Amino acid sequence: MTKQIAILGASGYTGAELIRFITTHPEFEIAALAADRKAGMEMGDVFPHLRYLNLPTLCKIGEIDFSGIDLCFCGLPHATSQEVIRDLPRDLKIVDLSADFRLRDPEVYASWYGHEHLALDIQDEAVYGLTEFYRDDIRQARVTAGTGCNAATGMYPVLPLLQAGAIDPDDIIINLATGVSGAGRSPKEGMLHAEVSDGFRAYNVAKHRHLAEFDQEFSKAAGREVQVTFVPHLLPQNRGILATVYVRGDATAIHKVLADRYSDEAFVHVLPFGELPATQHVRASNLCLLGVAPDRTGDRVMVFSALDNLSKGASSQAIQNANLMLGQEEGAGLNLVPAFP
Amino acid sequence: MTKQIAILGASGYTGAELIRFITTHPEFEIAALAADRKAGMEMGDVFPHLRYLNLPTLCKIGEIDFSGIDLCFCGLPHATSQEVIRDLPRDLKIVDLSADFRLRDPEVYASWYGHEHLALDIQDEAVYGLTEFYRDDIRQARVTAGTGCNAATGMYPVLPLLQAGAIDPDDIIINLATGVSGAGRSPKEGMLHAEVSDGFRAYNVAKHRHLAEFDQEFSKAAGREVQVTFVPHLLPQNRGILATVYVRGDATAIHKVLADRYSDEAFVHVLPFGELPATQHVRASNLCLLGVAPDRTGDRVMVFSALDNLSKGASSQAIQNANLMLGQEEGAGLNLVPAFP
Amino acid sequence: MTKQIAILGASGYTGAELIRFITTHPEFEIAALAADRKAGMEMGDVFPHLRYLNLPTLCKIGEIDFSGIDLCFCGLPHATSQEVIRDLPRDLKIVDLSADFRLRDPEVYASWYGHEHLALDIQDEAVYGLTEFYRDDIRQARVTAGTGCNAATGMYPVLPLLQAGAIDPDDIIINLATGVSGAGRSPKEGMLHAEVSDGFRAYNVAKHRHLAEFDQEFSKAAGREVQVTFVPHLLPQNRGILATVYVRGDATAIHKVLADRYSDEAFVHVLPFGELPATQHVRASNLCLLGVAPDRTGDRVMVFSALDNLSKGASSQAIQNANLMLGQEEGAGLNLVPAFP
Amino acid sequence: MTKQIAILGASGYTGAELIRFITTHPEFEIAALAADRKAGMEMGDVFPHLRYLNLPTLCKIGEIDFSGIDLCFCGLPHATSQEVIRDLPRDLKIVDLSADFRLRDPEVYASWYGHEHLALDIQDEAVYGLTEFYRDDIRQARVTAGTGCNAATGMYPVLPLLQAGAIDPDDIIINLATGVSGAGRSPKEGMLHAEVSDGFRAYNVAKHRHLAEFDQEFSKAAGREVQVTFVPHLLPQNRGILATVYVRGDATAIHKVLADRYSDEAFVHVLPFGELPATQHVRASNLCLLGVAPDRTGDRVMVFSALDNLSKGASSQAIQNANLMLGQEEGAGLNLVPAFP
Repeated sequence: MTKQIAILGASGYTGAELIRFITTHPEFEIAALAADRKAGMEMGDVFPHLRYLNLPTLCKIGEIDFSGIDLCFCGLPHATSQEVIRDLPRDLKIVDLSADFRLRDPEVYASWYGHEHLALDIQDEAVYGLTEFYRDDIRQARVTAGTGCNAATGMYPVLPLLQAGAIDPDDIIINLATGVSGAGRSPKEGMLHAEVSDGFRAYNVAKHRHLAEFDQEFSKAAGREVQVTFVPHLLPQNRGILATVYVRGDATAIHKVLADRYSDEAFVHVLPFGELPATQHVRASNLCLLGVAPDRTGDRVMVFSALDNLSKGASSQAIQNANLMLGQEEGAGLNLVPAFP
Repeated sequence: MTKQIAILGASGYTGAELIRFITTHPEFEIAALAADRKAGMEMGDVFPHLRYLNLPTLCKIGEIDFSGIDLCFCGLPHATSQEVIRDLPRDLKIVDLSADFRLRDPEVYASWYGHEHLALDIQDEAVYGLTEFYRDDIRQARVTAGTGCNAATGMYPVLPLLQAGAIDPDDIIINLATGVSGAGRSPKEGMLHAEVSDGFRAYNVAKHRHLAEFDQEFSKAAGREVQVTFVPHLLPQNRGILATVYVRGDATAIHKVLADRYSDEAFVHVLPFGELPATQHVRASNLCLLGVAPDRTGDRVMVFSALDNLSKGASSQAIQNANLMLGQEEGAGLNLVPAFP
Repeated sequence: MTKQIAILGASGYTGAELIRFITTHPEFEIAALAADRKAGMEMGDVFPHLRYLNLPTLCKIGEIDFSGIDLCFCGLPHATSQEVIRDLPRDLKIVDLSADFRLRDPEVYASWYGHEHLALDIQDEAVYGLTEFYRDDIRQARVTAGTGCNAATGMYPVLPLLQAGAIDPDDIIINLATGVSGAGRSPKEGMLHAEVSDGFRAYNVAKHRHLAEFDQEFSKAAGREVQVTFVPHLLPQNRGILATVYVRGDATAIHKVLADRYSDEAFVHVLPFGELPATQHVRASNLCLLGVAPDRTGDRVMVFSALDNLSKGASSQAIQNANLMLGQEEGAGLNLVPAFP
Repeated sequence: MTKQIAILGASGYTGAELIRFITTHPEFEIAALAADRKAGMEMGDVFPHLRYLNLPTLCKIGEIDFSGIDLCFCGLPHATSQEVIRDLPRDLKIVDLSADFRLRDPEVYASWYGHEHLALDIQDEAVYGLTEFYRDDIRQARVTAGTGCNAATGMYPVLPLLQAGAIDPDDIIINLATGVSGAGRSPKEGMLHAEVSDGFRAYNVAKHRHLAEFDQEFSKAAGREVQVTFVPHLLPQNRGILATVYVRGDATAIHKVLADRYSDEAFVHVLPFGELPATQHVRASNLCLLGVAPDRTGDRVMVFSALDNLSKGASSQAIQNANLMLGQEEGAGLNLVPAFP
């Protein structure tokens, strides 16, 4: 049965990406698109590649009649999101793509984001949106908090290993490289083509906010405090994240833990031992690919994880969760093969 | 009812692109994949982004039992294609993606391709695969010849104008820029990342083989001989062709001819007068976008055309034609929104 | 003898590019760098790639003692430039990189730039900075107006042909593609990596301001009014412009006119007949490469021109002119081989 | 006094890069260019960006009269290099850019390169070309072995720390990303633009041959065996390597060791504590930039190193060494500012 979908903050890249997937969804119908500063515009004026679709005109959030909406995706900026969601109907199903509801501990939230949380009761009920790990909770949830894109990339390889006790929880390095689309569409000097292209650099070393998500989920998985080293880098490409994770353990055992853990998953795949994923091979899809390679000696092992930050790291993850929340087939609308080359 | 599909020459970019679209097709099932030099390999070894799909192992063409195949896509190199198709069952429906069956006149073929055609009877029955112009013929066709990717990009804007007599047939310039994927996957020095990236140049000026297609179709449309000027350029990007066509006529009338001609088409769209298409806005989709802009004085008019060379210029065009040939809904499996950004 | 150089507007890309070339100049010494909004900062904070150089701290223009300055480069935005230069000492030699002093006719200036010119007497004395065509005037000039980067790319191939009467002045199309660095460093949505990369589109069709320069110089060269068709496109690359110029004439004669015209020039080179320039082959150099190719029939001829918009199209052109104005060897500091790959 | 220079293997990217720098060298003159398979061709046919230079025609190595040559650069493939150099005059000064003479231990060479070394006596006399660490030896050397490009990038940050005992030698990870030009100009499927662009992946994990150089130099510096973890990745860009090195020690002390070590160096610069280098800020220059950042807790420290693989990682390093061997100013011909943007 058709589900009526609203997207708040539809004028950003994650909004466009939601629409790209929903267009192939057999049961989702886009009923409302909100973008306060662009209200009154057509999506085709904001995103010319969507002009050919028959989409609702952008409106203000306040103009939406939520009584006919089955589920609402929120692609709003951090902080704005909690204010908006606080005032939405309390029986509306919501998949939030911001960072506002990812952290369980209000003090941790405040310390990483620099202000008190404004919707603590909703934060309390929100389920962390890493589908393959919170599937049952998400089915029951009213509010799902989409993961950070870097966070998801790091968690797929590390969480099962911590849960299985297969690695030393005190020696984990997540070295990660991400495409530029994660920075969004707001003009910034550092994201200009002339600044980014043909270049590579680290940023936010050991202080990226997705660390808070790693701390929360990894500590929970290990049953003790875990603090990873996390160094993100910026790639001269639009889409894709590759995490190169350095752990200590037995390479064969690590590969087996991951292969077993994801053997029944439709969207997370473990490559044969020694083979390595590439971001271009998951481009624009809901896939996450994992690989394991041993070091030449000793117990160091490298685990690789690749996904598309806008898709599995944000919008197609959100749809996967929405499917669960609405009783749909989990993979509905997510059957898009990576766009390679 | 499910249709059994074979792809010959499946190991090239157009083969992978066929699979990408067919995977979303409600009625097509891939029954056989052939690639003579890679027979025995899995598609996932040739194209890691397809590894997660459950696809047939690559085989030799001779190993396919065509009695169970409803339609065969041929993504073989030019010249090879005619030899292979000549020996296929004569009741098998075929969509060829090579240049071998595009030209009606065997002498013209011989002069552009440097050798006699080896399957003249099939050349004779083949229908030119520019769907929106040969729809009825394609429905009846046993063999469809996919257009050149540059040819399609130039024809969408020019053919209706010649048919309507809206432009001077003796003063047409097709200035075109294409992404590198059109050159295929064979290693060539000139297609290395280090040679192509951050650079732009023309190639095959006034002697590109797609000129033969322009001559054939434009002359037919105008009812007299038409010879355009055609200058292709190579872009530092993977996908996308933009044709900037210089014609003489009345800009408003030209826009109206195009807008009227394509008003009922699902995949060819004419932008509002003065607005311009971009290749990134059709990326990985079956769309072609057209725009019209006037010169500051005089009767020169610029018409712009953008499509994805691997999709609408090759593989999704092929599927659109296959749908017609198999009595499917014309747009089945082609409902993929451009992957932007 | 060492010449003291000041750069106003040093914090933009053309400022950085001036410094890149001047660093290899045997006689130029950078005495002052001004950037009003960044005064007090070091260049290394604005451009990390220059941090290792021992450069003056950025200051306000008013803080410079111009009595010790031999020549001043102005890389300020249009309109600002004329206000600033109006108030500089009237015996100071100036090479302006903005559009403010390129046009001879104040009414033409006002119509293209939307306001009256504020320094008409300086506009009157300024010499157009296309070195190879105004060399003698530039040697005597106090103020040189750097050309538009697109304008220079189009003029090198076309001016000699008009002067020689070798082409039809009423049928000239300049189809041009440019890298993004020409748009400068100010953040704009349309210049983000995610918007530009892997994409191609036209912009400012038939209304780009460099048309005013084409009109002025081409009409002067032809001895009658000439209005070209000009369609610029934006490339997914940082540097480089390729003009594909469509003219009517005799291809061999056209090639000879160009080859003869530039046979003694150090920085403008004409390729053998039929060979084509590429922007990657002039990257980061002061070179302009020209090529000529005939159409398959008729009198249409394609002339190609490639240069680097930041170098020969702006900053190294400015240095070449400064050398002439200061009695230096014309090629001093310009001996940088293209950075390929 | 002018020095006569020969380049063997001039038709590769490192050959072109040598010419780019030598062209600005006050005392070097290119006397001979050899490329056996392209003998008889002009450099301008092999590298169009060099066509405007007055360079010797490519010849076979055997055709060079080495009696008039002061120094010979060898940019030949591995294995070929040792055979060629074995047969060159034994009083000829040579800077080799291949891997053939980097390793001191013939058994180590044989185990990494798969065959016995064919010029053991020359291997014995060759000096490892990491200029800032072997300067005095290089001044006296007849043969210098240019370092691996990845090796140099990893050694600049790590060698001084091992020498100073500032880090744990048993816990060093060199996570590295490199541009594609390091793979050379031979056509390979994996280096096509369509395969590389908009994508990122690791390769040769824990088995890259540059490990042999790390082992040799790091063990020597530490006075004991050191084996690092080394994971290279391939970037979608032409030039540049960034090493992200994970070590254990005191971040402030580490920064001080590096800052002190390189305070007098012209081409290796240490950024202020916490600031990070980027490959685009060393593009096409002889610079290496280092940065140090602490982890949030514990004794993990990240040290970053950026250089251009074709320049400081190969050709400009070679010229720096040649300058020392020929009694030139060390920085002659190396004064090229990074080409940014």
